[in-house]
Amino acid sequence: MSVAYRPSHADATYDMKYGIRAVAGGGRSSARETIGRVAAGAVAKKLLHLIAGVEVIAYVSRVRDVSCDVDNSTFTLEQVEANDVRCPDAEAAKAMYKAIDEVRLRGDSCGGDVTCVIRSCPKGLGSPVFDKLEAELCKAFMSLPASKGVEIGSGFTGSAMLGSEHNDEFYMDAGEVRTRTNRSGGIQGGLSNGEAIVARIAFKPTSTISRKQHTVSRSGDEVELIARGRHDPCVVPRAVPMVEAMAALVIADQLLQHYAQCELLPRDGACSPDTSIARQFRQHLESSVAAAVTA
Amino acid sequence: MSVAYRPSHADATYDMKYGIRAVAGGGRSSARETIGRVAAGAVAKKLLHLIAGVEVIAYVSRVRDVSCDVDNSTFTLEQVEANDVRCPDAEAAKAMYKAIDEVRLRGDSCGGDVTCVIRSCPKGLGSPVFDKLEAELCKAFMSLPASKGVEIGSGFTGSAMLGSEHNDEFYMDAGEVRTRTNRSGGIQGGLSNGEAIVARIAFKPTSTISRKQHTVSRSGDEVELIARGRHDPCVVPRAVPMVEAMAALVIADQLLQHYAQCELLPRDGACSPDTSIARQFRQHLESSVAAAVTA
Amino acid sequence: MSVAYRPSHADATYDMKYGIRAVAGGGRSSARETIGRVAAGAVAKKLLHLIAGVEVIAYVSRVRDVSCDVDNSTFTLEQVEANDVRCPDAEAAKAMYKAIDEVRLRGDSCGGDVTCVIRSCPKGLGSPVFDKLEAELCKAFMSLPASKGVEIGSGFTGSAMLGSEHNDEFYMDAGEVRTRTNRSGGIQGGLSNGEAIVARIAFKPTSTISRKQHTVSRSGDEVELIARGRHDPCVVPRAVPMVEAMAALVIADQLLQHYAQCELLPRDGACSPDTSIARQFRQHLESSVAAAVTA
Amino acid sequence: MSVAYRPSHADATYDMKYGIRAVAGGGRSSARETIGRVAAGAVAKKLLHLIAGVEVIAYVSRVRDVSCDVDNSTFTLEQVEANDVRCPDAEAAKAMYKAIDEVRLRGDSCGGDVTCVIRSCPKGLGSPVFDKLEAELCKAFMSLPASKGVEIGSGFTGSAMLGSEHNDEFYMDAGEVRTRTNRSGGIQGGLSNGEAIVARIAFKPTSTISRKQHTVSRSGDEVELIARGRHDPCVVPRAVPMVEAMAALVIADQLLQHYAQCELLPRDGACSPDTSIARQFRQHLESSVAAAVTA
Repeated sequence: MSVAYRPSHADATYDMKYGIRAVAGGGRSSARETIGRVAAGAVAKKLLHLIAGVEVIAYVSRVRDVSCDVDNSTFTLEQVEANDVRCPDAEAAKAMYKAIDEVRLRGDSCGGDVTCVIRSCPKGLGSPVFDKLEAELCKAFMSLPASKGVEIGSGFTGSAMLGSEHNDEFYMDAGEVRTRTNRSGGIQGGLSNGEAIVARIAFKPTSTISRKQHTVSRSGDEVELIARGRHDPCVVPRAVPMVEAMAALVIADQLLQHYAQCELLPRDGACSPDTSIARQFRQHLESSVAAAVTA
Repeated sequence: MSVAYRPSHADATYDMKYGIRAVAGGGRSSARETIGRVAAGAVAKKLLHLIAGVEVIAYVSRVRDVSCDVDNSTFTLEQVEANDVRCPDAEAAKAMYKAIDEVRLRGDSCGGDVTCVIRSCPKGLGSPVFDKLEAELCKAFMSLPASKGVEIGSGFTGSAMLGSEHNDEFYMDAGEVRTRTNRSGGIQGGLSNGEAIVARIAFKPTSTISRKQHTVSRSGDEVELIARGRHDPCVVPRAVPMVEAMAALVIADQLLQHYAQCELLPRDGACSPDTSIARQFRQHLESSVAAAVTA
Repeated sequence: MSVAYRPSHADATYDMKYGIRAVAGGGRSSARETIGRVAAGAVAKKLLHLIAGVEVIAYVSRVRDVSCDVDNSTFTLEQVEANDVRCPDAEAAKAMYKAIDEVRLRGDSCGGDVTCVIRSCPKGLGSPVFDKLEAELCKAFMSLPASKGVEIGSGFTGSAMLGSEHNDEFYMDAGEVRTRTNRSGGIQGGLSNGEAIVARIAFKPTSTISRKQHTVSRSGDEVELIARGRHDPCVVPRAVPMVEAMAALVIADQLLQHYAQCELLPRDGACSPDTSIARQFRQHLESSVAAAVTA
Repeated sequence: MSVAYRPSHADATYDMKYGIRAVAGGGRSSARETIGRVAAGAVAKKLLHLIAGVEVIAYVSRVRDVSCDVDNSTFTLEQVEANDVRCPDAEAAKAMYKAIDEVRLRGDSCGGDVTCVIRSCPKGLGSPVFDKLEAELCKAFMSLPASKGVEIGSGFTGSAMLGSEHNDEFYMDAGEVRTRTNRSGGIQGGLSNGEAIVARIAFKPTSTISRKQHTVSRSGDEVELIARGRHDPCVVPRAVPMVEAMAALVIADQLLQHYAQCELLPRDGACSPDTSIARQFRQHLESSVAAAVTA
């Protein structure tokens, strides 16, 4: 590993750009880099919960070809943390565990998906053009090591649907505008709509494996490489807190911006109709804060 | 439409956030907003081609359930522009056209995917942690109207693979480090590796349809809505130039940053081994510029 | 002017950087560029007044060697706008007018200073290290055409004083912490302290004059130049609204940031002593908003 | 000091904003905060010298009422570092030293000015509107603790001059456009013109003094305060490396931006006249880099 580039690993591109690389452990390309994000995310999660009752929670929704059956509205953190693969479907978790173990014994690795749910997100977070809420979230998720894809709501499944199948119809629920389905994944036109925000992130299999691979050396010779050392056969369970952290940081940042932009200036009759919707949002926020202060 | 919110359309969330909305045409939520992006992207594409020989080209790779068979290495702009749906596979294009027409006649809409290929992208563009090249690209693509998902390289297919199947092995090609496969989609560890950058973007079906839907009015009453006016049954062919524009803007921006960060300072023996790889990159850039000046 | 560079004018440096320049009128280097700033500043001023009772007001405090005698605590907008040179000291205004006229008749130009006062600025705006409130204000003022210097509070006079002469002693005024003097100019340690913010900005004499000057042509020949066309003999009175606009934009931006950072999160006993000072600030802001809503 | 606010010190405003403050030592308001800036500035200075032959050098130009006589074109770092007050005029340095000592014995403090000179700065750095080079420099200088004013070139003296006195006439010097005087301080219209950049920064007297002062306590009582502990009677000599660091960081940043914006794209006949001036700049930069590589 000190002379040859690991296939699909960052050490080759780092060397191309900087002329240096961290051979042992990967340096900045190691997922250990995310420890600071997870620490900051913990603060953001607490703040979001205190201020606005937001809950950010993620789980492993697929390992290799093993999927699961989870209700995004009801699963709990306890269920996620009840097993090592962080999948709230206990049966699927066992199958995932077995799939990882099988791959590990062969010196190979496998990938999988993480699903992230943001519950009770205030309405209106985000902005309409370049910095859409889904754009900010996707950038944050795709900045995580090994991520190769992101979906918001229906994602690639949704792009195969008809408009009449895909649209989320509105209805009134205790004076509040809600949608009956949530194919939008809680975001419409760059702004949160108050439904749960749902995202799915694809993580590729770990690039460092203990099987023989063809590669080239720094000096430009074609060589064979068998990596040694301790390498995760599957990073996906460890990606769960990273995904939660990035989601919480984005939402906290958007909440601050939204508060400054939309809540500082009192709306008068001229510039805002102050519809029941706008009033409800304000009441929702106020009661959350009041409850937080009391608690 | 002046009193009721269109399901899955931005006018409800705009109203939640701002207390105002553009009923006719959608205002900032209309894809017409992207005209400025496409204009700027045209300049970026020209600059990228002149400086570094980069080619940015996209096509419709799926409409509803109609896929196509395209070689990302060889398809041309002429093939893309040869038909109205912007798919370089002529047979598939016909089937896509038929699928859209069928949906249109029923007053419905459908979604699809766009694939974007960036050829001859210089090595080393991007950065290692928060602003990874894939993160910047995904934010840019997800800022486009109606986008619900993005994949770089293998994407969600890759997350179902083993490391031994997924890794891109390196080899030497005329003195340059190349990969035999391109499941990485031209990006490893946040930096371009010189292979073609390949991204796929999911676009949901147009939300405004001419079929009866349940929704609510601004005043909070549950109503039924049948949208009138001219609405695209499928935005995907029109999304092709938007996708190219966002890709070109991101790459041009990264090229400027890379040039300032890595090409201004001469590397001496101490801070850079100046391997054949680094030298090749420099030679590649220099010969591109020389050729551009001559041309 | 189409072949020769005007001494001390931006057209030479524009040509050095871009290889092009706007010979007639100066293009981006014309103070006409500031029209957008003044328009945006008008909105910011209104918002600041509505939300927090802030008043942003500037005047010409010197033209060439003619100074004035103005009480920064009491002068009014009406007094500023009562004469063409925008100096609230009517006697000094006359002398300034005469000084400008004299210079104009000789085809020459002169400079001067503008003093800007921001009254009733909320306490705590700004930040402690890089983005100090004084740093943001100075950047904004120095981005105006022809500005060559900025002082906050005592400025260069203060740097000649002793600490015992310069320090602003605190006292209690109706339950609020105030300072008896204001050499700090309303800012201590990067944060506003609730006293009036006072800044002074130096504007150099207009570079385009109708007198013969030595210069060089684009082709590198030494030539003589006599500028023609209508050029202000003194820009300082016209700089007054520009200075106000930049001040208002900075303060409005800081108010939004402060509100998001410090007012969203309720302070509990643990993380804040909630001293009478902190409470007073909150009450002050709340009563301002309440009054604004009522009005 | 643990119960009362020090007049003109940041601990009162920190408490107003955050509800907490660092009583001992001042925390973020201590000038010790600048150690990271000085370290980063050392790297920036080295880079600037290597790439473009830029020299950034500052000195104490006034302490209280003691000025000095220094030729900004010729003074050297050795002369600056030859005495404790960092003034290259040895006679003045002695008088400054005496002035500080006198103040120190009385338990008082004094302020002064620092002059910063940036020699051999490439032409064209900066931008024309909001981010003018003088605006970036002034923000950087005003972010330093205790700074109360900044001048570029003629500053407040220049605002008292006539255009015919103030303008810097151009002449040709060995094929290069130069100015005979430098009242512009090396910057015209937001861009460097190749002459030495000259700035002067005012530092107020240290606020913490050992003399009795009136102030208020955190609980809102009027009290008297005599500060104890070791406090600088004059921070100005220590501000010299801080000023150099901020200047170097701004210029290095601008050099990177300039290089990416103006040097990456080859200028053809159509978009640039490629005057002798533009060519000279390019040659100057190229020969600097060549010399640096050789060295």
